[in-house]
Amino acid sequence: MLENLRMVPNDTIIALATPSGAGAIAVIRISGKGAITKVAPFFKSVHRKNLAAQDTHTIRLGHIVEEGKTLDEVLVSIFKGPHSYTGEDVIEISCHGSPYIQQQIIQLFLRNGCRTADAGEFTLRAFLNGKMDLSQAEAVADLIASDNEASHQIAIQQMRGGFSNEIKELRSELLNFASLIELELDFAEEDVEFADRVQFKDLLARIQQVLRRLIDSFAVGNVIKNGIPVAIVGEPNVGKSTLLNVLLNEERALVSEIAGTTRDSIEDEISIGGIGFRFIDTAGIRKTEDVIEGMGIQRTFEKIGKAQVVLYLIDSTTFFPEQTPTVPEVAEIWQPLLEIERIRNKYPEKPLVVVANKIDQIDKEVKTNLNVMLSAVKGIEVQMLSAKTKTGVEELQSKLLGFINTGALRNNETIVTNTRHYNALLKALEEIEKVQFGMQENLPSDLMAIDVREALYHLGEITGQVTNDELLGNIFANFCIGK
Amino acid sequence: MLENLRMVPNDTIIALATPSGAGAIAVIRISGKGAITKVAPFFKSVHRKNLAAQDTHTIRLGHIVEEGKTLDEVLVSIFKGPHSYTGEDVIEISCHGSPYIQQQIIQLFLRNGCRTADAGEFTLRAFLNGKMDLSQAEAVADLIASDNEASHQIAIQQMRGGFSNEIKELRSELLNFASLIELELDFAEEDVEFADRVQFKDLLARIQQVLRRLIDSFAVGNVIKNGIPVAIVGEPNVGKSTLLNVLLNEERALVSEIAGTTRDSIEDEISIGGIGFRFIDTAGIRKTEDVIEGMGIQRTFEKIGKAQVVLYLIDSTTFFPEQTPTVPEVAEIWQPLLEIERIRNKYPEKPLVVVANKIDQIDKEVKTNLNVMLSAVKGIEVQMLSAKTKTGVEELQSKLLGFINTGALRNNETIVTNTRHYNALLKALEEIEKVQFGMQENLPSDLMAIDVREALYHLGEITGQVTNDELLGNIFANFCIGK
Repeated sequence: MLENLRMVPNDTIIALATPSGAGAIAVIRISGKGAITKVAPFFKSVHRKNLAAQDTHTIRLGHIVEEGKTLDEVLVSIFKGPHSYTGEDVIEISCHGSPYIQQQIIQLFLRNGCRTADAGEFTLRAFLNGKMDLSQAEAVADLIASDNEASHQIAIQQMRGGFSNEIKELRSELLNFASLIELELDFAEEDVEFADRVQFKDLLARIQQVLRRLIDSFAVGNVIKNGIPVAIVGEPNVGKSTLLNVLLNEERALVSEIAGTTRDSIEDEISIGGIGFRFIDTAGIRKTEDVIEGMGIQRTFEKIGKAQVVLYLIDSTTFFPEQTPTVPEVAEIWQPLLEIERIRNKYPEKPLVVVANKIDQIDKEVKTNLNVMLSAVKGIEVQMLSAKTKTGVEELQSKLLGFINTGALRNNETIVTNTRHYNALLKALEEIEKVQFGMQENLPSDLMAIDVREALYHLGEITGQVTNDELLGNIFANFCIGK
Repeated sequence: MLENLRMVPNDTIIALATPSGAGAIAVIRISGKGAITKVAPFFKSVHRKNLAAQDTHTIRLGHIVEEGKTLDEVLVSIFKGPHSYTGEDVIEISCHGSPYIQQQIIQLFLRNGCRTADAGEFTLRAFLNGKMDLSQAEAVADLIASDNEASHQIAIQQMRGGFSNEIKELRSELLNFASLIELELDFAEEDVEFADRVQFKDLLARIQQVLRRLIDSFAVGNVIKNGIPVAIVGEPNVGKSTLLNVLLNEERALVSEIAGTTRDSIEDEISIGGIGFRFIDTAGIRKTEDVIEGMGIQRTFEKIGKAQVVLYLIDSTTFFPEQTPTVPEVAEIWQPLLEIERIRNKYPEKPLVVVANKIDQIDKEVKTNLNVMLSAVKGIEVQMLSAKTKTGVEELQSKLLGFINTGALRNNETIVTNTRHYNALLKALEEIEKVQFGMQENLPSDLMAIDVREALYHLGEITGQVTNDELLGNIFANFCIGK
C-alpha cells in the first residue's frame, strides 16, 4: 500500500511555549527521550528529590542551578511518555516571565544537548507518535488562530476527532474491499469474486454521501474561518465609523474588562453571533463624468463584487420630503436612491441592506415617508437605525446573520474549514464516483482497483495515514514555535 | 508596637499569568479560598476525577466545559494552600494560547465568582500569607524586570532572603532590648536596669556596621540596576555605530539563536560582563564662535556631566604625522586632542577613555606616534581599536568594567538596589546613631526608647513587618497583572 509513516526523531527539543515578552510567568517546554535526564542535573528540587524519581503529571518547586549559580526559582512539571502532549517525555519549566531569564534557561539546555524546536515540532511529534491524526494536528493551529465563537467551536470539534474518525472508519472498510479486489486480480484466470458487489456498492454510496456532505459544508466553513466580507457603501459623513463602533462596542467592553489580555484584531472585523464579519469600506458610486472619480466607482464595484453582503448607509437627515413627494419624484432627485438602484442593477443577486442612519434626527412623518420610499425598491432589506441611540442595531445584526446559512453550525454538524481537506475530499469523491461508474459499466476489476487505491490515498491524506515530507513540512511550517 | 498587618482577603482572584498575545500555550492563574470549588464545576477531567479529590502539585488533562460547550482542552495544575505561591489554594489552567480562548476562560470564571486580580495581587497575597517578606516580594518584580546578569543575580539573591534575614534577626534582637528598656521605664522610680548596657552597645555597633555596609552597597546596586551611563563623544563618521554594533554583537547573536524569544531592549544598552552600560550619543565639542553650535557644546557637556564614564572616539585616519611632528606641534593643530583636553579640564575626575578607531587603516609607524601622543595626555586611558577587525574590543570592555567597583558583586556580597530600602536603611542608621549618642551622653532612657522605636520602625519597613496601605499600594502597583 501507499502508507508511508515518517520516522519519529530521537533528539530532545526545547522552545518557549508562552508568548514572547515579559509577563508574570513563562513556560519553557522540553520534549524527547532525553528530556528528563537533560533537565535533571540542573534542577534542584526544594525537596531534594531527583527529577527522574518524580511521578508523571506532578509539579515540583525548585531552582535551575548552573555551576552553583541560581538562574531562577521555577516550577517543573513532568509528563512521562506516552502520557504527554508529544507522546515523549516532556518537561515544562514555569519560570519568572522575564525575557532575560527565558533566554538564560533555554540557552543552558541548548548548551547541554537540547535543540531548538522547529515551528510546530511538538505537534508534529504528537502526530508521529500517534497521539493525534493529521487533521487534529491542523485543528491545533486553527484553534490558536480562532478569534470568534464559530471558528473556535469548529476547531475544537475537529481537534477532538471531528470528521476524521468517520473518514478513518470508511477508509478502513474501503481498504478491506481493496484487498479482496486485489486478491481477485491474483486469481484473475479463475474469475472469482471475493468482494461482495452488493455490499461494496452500498459502501461506495455511503462514502459518496459523506464526502458530498463534507464538501458542501466547506462553503459555510470557509466563510466562518475567514469571516464574511461585507462592503459598506456610503459617504464619509453618513456615520460609517460610528456604526462600526456601535457594532464593535459590546465586544470591546468585554475585552477591556480583562486587563492583561489584548486582542489581535483587524480593526474592522466584528463578531456578530459568534461569526466574524469583515467590513470593507468603500467610497460612494455617484454618477460622474470625471475620469478619476470613475476609477473610484470602478474600485467600489470591484469591492462589492467580492463582498458577500452589501450595506448601503444613508444619512436620513439628507432626505427632504417637505411636501411628501411621491416616490418617483424623489427617486429622480435624491442621490442615494439612484446609487442603490445602480448597485441593485449591477449585482441583482447580492444581499443588499440599506441602513437609514441618524433616524433620531428626523421627525416621525419624514421617517415614515423614507421607509415607504426605500421599501418600494425591489430586492433590498431596509433597516432604520440610529447609531447614537442604538435603535435598530440589534435588528441589523439579525439581518446580517440571516444571510449566512448557519444551520450546519447550529446543528453541530461537522464543518470542513481546511482547504487541504476540501481538495482531498473532492479528489476522493472523484475517484469514488469513477469506481461507481466502473461497477455500473462492468469495467474490468484491475481498472477499478486503481481508482480504489487513489480514493484510499486521498482519504488517507486527510487523516495523515498517507503522508510525505513536503505535506508535513507545509502543514507544520504554519504553526508557531513552541507548539 | 507599631506593627500593623493588613487583612488577608477572602475572595478568589483570576488573571492571565503569561504575556498577552498568541502563543502555543497560555496560563491562567486563580487563587483564593474558593479556587478549587469555583473551577471544579467547569473542569471535566479525562479521568473523570473530581478536582477537589486531586492531590496537590498534580496536573490533569481535561476540558473546560460550560453548559455542554467545550471551551478548550486544558491542563489543570492544582496547588493546595499553604503549599502554593500565594499560600492559598491555587489553580493554574494551561490552555491553548489564543487570545480568544484566554478571554473566554477568564470570563467564564469572572461570571462565576472570581474577580480580576489587581497588579501584583498574587504576590501581595503571598506576602500577607507570610510566604515571603516585603523585600522578597519586591525582588520578584526586580527579577522580572532584570535584563542582565548582574541585576538578575542581585534580584535572585534578594528573593531568596538576601539581607532581609539579617535585618530581621538584628531587628528581633533590638526588639528584645526595646522591651527591656520600656520595662525599665515602668519601674522608673526604682532605677533598675533590665537591659544589659554592654550587650546593648555591642548590638548597636553590630547594627550600625551592617547598615553602613548595606548603605554603601547602594552605590554599586543602583548602577547595576539602572545601567552605567557612558557618554560617547565623537563625530558621526568616526565609527560610533559600528563600535556599538561590535559591542552588541555577541549578545545579539545569542538572542537570534532562540526563535520565539525577543528582547525588550533599549537599543543602546549593552551588557558587558553581565553589567548594563547605557551609551549616550553626543555631538563633538569643537571650539566655536557660533551661538547655535555653542548650545550644542553646552548639551554635550551636560550629558558628559551625567555620565559615569566618557568614551572619546577618534578616527585614526585623520591623524597625519607624516614628518613625525613632536607632540606639542600636533597638539596645536589636531582638533581631537584639543577636545580631549577641554573635557579633561572641565571634568578632571571623570574616567575618560580615548578610543582610536580604524587602526587597521593606518600604518605601524603612524600608530606608534598616535599612541605616544595620546598617552602623553594626563589622566586618560587610551585604547587603540578597529571595530572592523575587532582588534582591541575586548580590551575596551575590560577597561569599561575596570571603572566599576564590582568587587561586592564578585564576592557575592549583599547589594541594595532598591531606593525604598536605601532610604529606610539611612533612617534606621540615623536613629541607631542617636541611640548610641544617647548612651554615650547618659541621656534618659525614655528619650532613648523613642529612638529605638523609630529604628525598629524603619527596619521593619524593609521586611514588611511594619507596613501600611499606602506603602503596599505603591509597591504592588508597579507589578504586572498576573504576578
